[in-house]
Amino acid sequence: MTSSSYTDIDTLAINTIRTLAVDTTAHAKSGHPGAPMGLAPAAHVLFSRIMKFNPAHPKWLNRDRFILSNGHACVLQYIMCHLLGYKLTIEDLKQFRQVGSKTPGHPETHNPDLNIETGAGPLGQGIASAVGLAIGKAHSAAVYNKPGFDLFSNYTFCFLGDGCLQEGVSSEACSLAGHLKLSNLIAVWDNNKITIDGATSMSFDEDVEKRFEAYGWNIVRVANGDTDLDGIEKGFREAMSCTDKPTLINLKTTIGYGSELQGTHSVHGSPLKPEDCVHVKKLFGFDPTKTFQVPPEVYAYYKERVAIASSAEEEYKKMYASYKQSYPDLSNQLERILSRKFPEGWEKHLPVYKPGDKAVATRKLSEIVLDALCPVLPELVGGSADLTPSNLTRWEGAADFQPPSSKLGTYAGRYIRYGIREHGMAGIMNGLAVYGPIIPYGGTFLNFVSYAAGAVRMAALNNSRVIYVATHDSIGLGEDGPTHQPIETFAHFRAMPNINCWRPADGNETSAAYYSALTSDSTPSILALTRQNLPQLENSTIENALKGGYVMLENKEADITLVGTGSEVSLCIDTVKTLETEYNLKARVVSLPCWEVFEQQPESYRLSVIPDGIPAMSVEVWATNGWRRYVHEAFGMHTFGDSGPAPKLYEKFHFTTSGVAQRAKKTVDAYKDIPYIRSPVRRAF
Amino acid sequence: MTSSSYTDIDTLAINTIRTLAVDTTAHAKSGHPGAPMGLAPAAHVLFSRIMKFNPAHPKWLNRDRFILSNGHACVLQYIMCHLLGYKLTIEDLKQFRQVGSKTPGHPETHNPDLNIETGAGPLGQGIASAVGLAIGKAHSAAVYNKPGFDLFSNYTFCFLGDGCLQEGVSSEACSLAGHLKLSNLIAVWDNNKITIDGATSMSFDEDVEKRFEAYGWNIVRVANGDTDLDGIEKGFREAMSCTDKPTLINLKTTIGYGSELQGTHSVHGSPLKPEDCVHVKKLFGFDPTKTFQVPPEVYAYYKERVAIASSAEEEYKKMYASYKQSYPDLSNQLERILSRKFPEGWEKHLPVYKPGDKAVATRKLSEIVLDALCPVLPELVGGSADLTPSNLTRWEGAADFQPPSSKLGTYAGRYIRYGIREHGMAGIMNGLAVYGPIIPYGGTFLNFVSYAAGAVRMAALNNSRVIYVATHDSIGLGEDGPTHQPIETFAHFRAMPNINCWRPADGNETSAAYYSALTSDSTPSILALTRQNLPQLENSTIENALKGGYVMLENKEADITLVGTGSEVSLCIDTVKTLETEYNLKARVVSLPCWEVFEQQPESYRLSVIPDGIPAMSVEVWATNGWRRYVHEAFGMHTFGDSGPAPKLYEKFHFTTSGVAQRAKKTVDAYKDIPYIRSPVRRAF
Repeated sequence: MTSSSYTDIDTLAINTIRTLAVDTTAHAKSGHPGAPMGLAPAAHVLFSRIMKFNPAHPKWLNRDRFILSNGHACVLQYIMCHLLGYKLTIEDLKQFRQVGSKTPGHPETHNPDLNIETGAGPLGQGIASAVGLAIGKAHSAAVYNKPGFDLFSNYTFCFLGDGCLQEGVSSEACSLAGHLKLSNLIAVWDNNKITIDGATSMSFDEDVEKRFEAYGWNIVRVANGDTDLDGIEKGFREAMSCTDKPTLINLKTTIGYGSELQGTHSVHGSPLKPEDCVHVKKLFGFDPTKTFQVPPEVYAYYKERVAIASSAEEEYKKMYASYKQSYPDLSNQLERILSRKFPEGWEKHLPVYKPGDKAVATRKLSEIVLDALCPVLPELVGGSADLTPSNLTRWEGAADFQPPSSKLGTYAGRYIRYGIREHGMAGIMNGLAVYGPIIPYGGTFLNFVSYAAGAVRMAALNNSRVIYVATHDSIGLGEDGPTHQPIETFAHFRAMPNINCWRPADGNETSAAYYSALTSDSTPSILALTRQNLPQLENSTIENALKGGYVMLENKEADITLVGTGSEVSLCIDTVKTLETEYNLKARVVSLPCWEVFEQQPESYRLSVIPDGIPAMSVEVWATNGWRRYVHEAFGMHTFGDSGPAPKLYEKFHFTTSGVAQRAKKTVDAYKDIPYIRSPVRRAF
Repeated sequence: MTSSSYTDIDTLAINTIRTLAVDTTAHAKSGHPGAPMGLAPAAHVLFSRIMKFNPAHPKWLNRDRFILSNGHACVLQYIMCHLLGYKLTIEDLKQFRQVGSKTPGHPETHNPDLNIETGAGPLGQGIASAVGLAIGKAHSAAVYNKPGFDLFSNYTFCFLGDGCLQEGVSSEACSLAGHLKLSNLIAVWDNNKITIDGATSMSFDEDVEKRFEAYGWNIVRVANGDTDLDGIEKGFREAMSCTDKPTLINLKTTIGYGSELQGTHSVHGSPLKPEDCVHVKKLFGFDPTKTFQVPPEVYAYYKERVAIASSAEEEYKKMYASYKQSYPDLSNQLERILSRKFPEGWEKHLPVYKPGDKAVATRKLSEIVLDALCPVLPELVGGSADLTPSNLTRWEGAADFQPPSSKLGTYAGRYIRYGIREHGMAGIMNGLAVYGPIIPYGGTFLNFVSYAAGAVRMAALNNSRVIYVATHDSIGLGEDGPTHQPIETFAHFRAMPNINCWRPADGNETSAAYYSALTSDSTPSILALTRQNLPQLENSTIENALKGGYVMLENKEADITLVGTGSEVSLCIDTVKTLETEYNLKARVVSLPCWEVFEQQPESYRLSVIPDGIPAMSVEVWATNGWRRYVHEAFGMHTFGDSGPAPKLYEKFHFTTSGVAQRAKKTVDAYKDIPYIRSPVRRAF
């Protein structure tokens, strides 16, 4: 029997974590004590012996990353933050789950003082983000590390529960992590056999180790995660010594360890009963009449351990100073990117078009932008969910991000083959976006961004700059039919807070969409792009489009304003003649490529675009929901699409000059006796 | 060496399938020839030797089911339908991917003459539906089969490709299928090593067999799926002989078998070039100058095989006649359910409330409905994605659907423990809904219905009656915070065609929501339900609510109409007094629990609810997108929520009587000088 390096102080620290978890949830009358109690030993070992980090500089570049994928257990992370010296007080713990606190019900990124890298809580998102962080490390190391200068050498640790493992997004991300041989990724499975419904045996009895072996992961088992601290440490060290695979640590724990109800789902999602709180404290030698107790020696012990954990940063600073001298170009590039600035004059590379230039699909125009920008912006790391030849997301001269042993690329490559894994891709991009020197974009068909909705939402909530290149944006994709044709997709994302939804109408608007997406550094963007060719429009400029909406064709005597986006803007322009000749009506045309950006313009500008006095009608081959914020009548799709050549579908659904003109005429008629037509952009509040 | 039971006619049939696949896609100038060419032998063996079906009665109850999860390969299914004698002509093949044809770009359910059980195409959906069909069979057999009467004994065969395997939804569904030991499910993996981006080695080199073993599946390998017909048949028979696990057949094939480019991604998604079409025909001994050739002996051969495949139905009819005599109650029940009728007077079991009855959360009211209806409607098969105690979806006395060996339930159980697999659950329900004697419902938090969006969309497209019980429907869920609080969810689904989105305000509206969901037999429904208690409202009746919207509080002298849903209806009612006392304004209140149903009412009714002459303002703690179809001004959420007790959150976001009243006042002021206020329910077209 080997003697342990752990002593009573470690046990005391762990029991402090456990009793704080009991008190924090009891005080909030809400929350999840079970997983924090079960994971306390692993968290203690990880933060006191394994990880490099500095609570005084939570964003230190080469820190080891920690992700709590089972985010409902966030009490654990908050308690560790407190004990380790991050800016989180006992008072903050008492504010757990209260409005405006530092300690919300699931981990959120809004508090940069803490060690929360990305939001978590919706199950499976954390582990997908962790895969993204691990890719970020592998890529940054390949680009910036030099002999003797391991600028990027961190590990990514992720705790996850049975729920995360059951979610499809984790399967997608973990399968790709195995393929990519991300050895800096260490996932700790809290194997406690309990979910909300009860025992995992009710629905989840797969062989998780075998599944992860099938993905190409290294497996480490820790048989006793409740008390065997040496075993836990050994597990971490074994995982860290594996250099060619990510590792899953199968950590067997007891949920709610110490509670009278330990090992049952009763301790999962509700505070312990008062008598059980007493029981736990007595069991662990704490005063049962007191709450939020932290023995002074526990603080002192963590201080000591943190001094060691954070000493790495001092050494790093010295190394970096020397690196800067040896590699001025690389260090300048890195510092520029980390400061979230672009190179001088980068925007001059954006393609510009003039009317008369040939008609091109916006997905192709997007490719032209990427061809122009990717060489200038080394922080752009792209990819596609196995639709590269359709999304046109791979710029000329791109190299693939692949494990070197695959011979298909290297970790320095900037193009990720995500496979047919939209949700995984979006989740991974959430990690990439916060690793540091990376701006991620990824392609799929617009309709399948909905597969990724859970992760897209996290990007919006995290304030992360992530770009979704969403081609095949309507019935205009043609023959693939209704299973692939978006109808409701933008209605969804336009309703989501903090995400910019762009639908450019031509080349200049596509350039504007990229400009906006790249410079919106706390907002994700979706770019909806056509499969079919679109003409280059008169009056379209990058500057105009960057207002989100603008007058494409003015007529001071107009009877109606036609408002379109994307492929329907040119249809609106073409309809102006039809209205004149068939109905003797005059129309003006507005392009509204991005509602969210248009909303940011002053009311006076918005009124100049969509004025009082005449009715406005939108034309867009999608669901009309949301359009009446800008128009009086909305022409769109109320059914799913159909399978056929695109022009036939536009005919079938009346998206023709005559179809638009008929509806415009009806709109003018409906409003003709109305004495005052108020612009919908006027709002009462 | 054993002699084969396959002869030249089988080879000829297979090559006929392959050349038809070449011709059909070439004629359409669109589509996917590669997978159909590679899978032709497996399809031939399956339909000529293995499956029981009857093209004359495509919906025969005990038919073996076939799902093409790699739906882009649907040319294969259409060709098989033609050759087997389903109502699909060569002319229909020539109409492949044309508007209004029987042969759209991906399998759709709208043509009941064919053997298409559910829509497929968005990858991973088909296999999830197949798991649902397999559950449907296991459950129906357990309920209806009796000694000597195997009423339900069919198999479910599913072809799927690498893409399906990569999608998370397939991981979720297949993991559950393994747990449930669904031995009637046989999935055939078209292992051709090719995806759109190129070789699967670029992103997908997991050990698929091992992964499925980890899920608890039986694995069968067919080393040569291109030419070894005996091997393919042996693979199917081995799979069918396994009685305690689902089977994955690892079928190695060559994509585009016979093309000059076989085995590459060039044959995946585009028709072959003309010279390659010639090459294929010459190789297979067909006239290269002709198209759509079917040798008469091939028709004759399939006729012979179909006679055998369909003979089972004749025997079945006899057995059923005898069953009917022996088990009149069961057979009556089955026939009633299959005719999509409910038992006489079933609706009288719906709970009814009167004003003054105590305040109850609508999730709890939903549980009361389920408690009342589930004993009366044996076709209801419920479940939850591991949120049973939160969703309250398990009725009193329910038994779990579990493999008998688990001792946790039996296949006769009607409550499915889906695990933390929302997308898998929704995909599985799509299969359950079309199996026959089942109406599925499943619970999760409303915010996580978005995880399942891909499958929800298929239910709408399939015209399937599926019920999503979506609790914790707003910031009203409280402490879990913004990661769990829906904002944009209903904006999304309200924009989706063919789905009813209900948000009941009290008990009677909850009963109405269930009545509507159950009787809308070609439309799925989402029921958004609160965690928090809501009062029973005056003027709320099931009958009123079934109009989708109605006047909750009338006032002929009103200055404004307040329109609410769910938890905000009572808030609107409470605000009426505040408006009167604080602003001397009169208000009327409308409840609009289901927009889609309200849309079906005549304009005159809709105008009686939201009349001309006064402004209308909506009050709903969600994104306002879409609301201006009914109101002039919309009060909602423009940011994500927060973590805190529900009442505090309602205060923070101004969803209080004073917050609503202030905005109502501003609305009245904004419209007071407008000479004619047009009701938004009036539409120009």
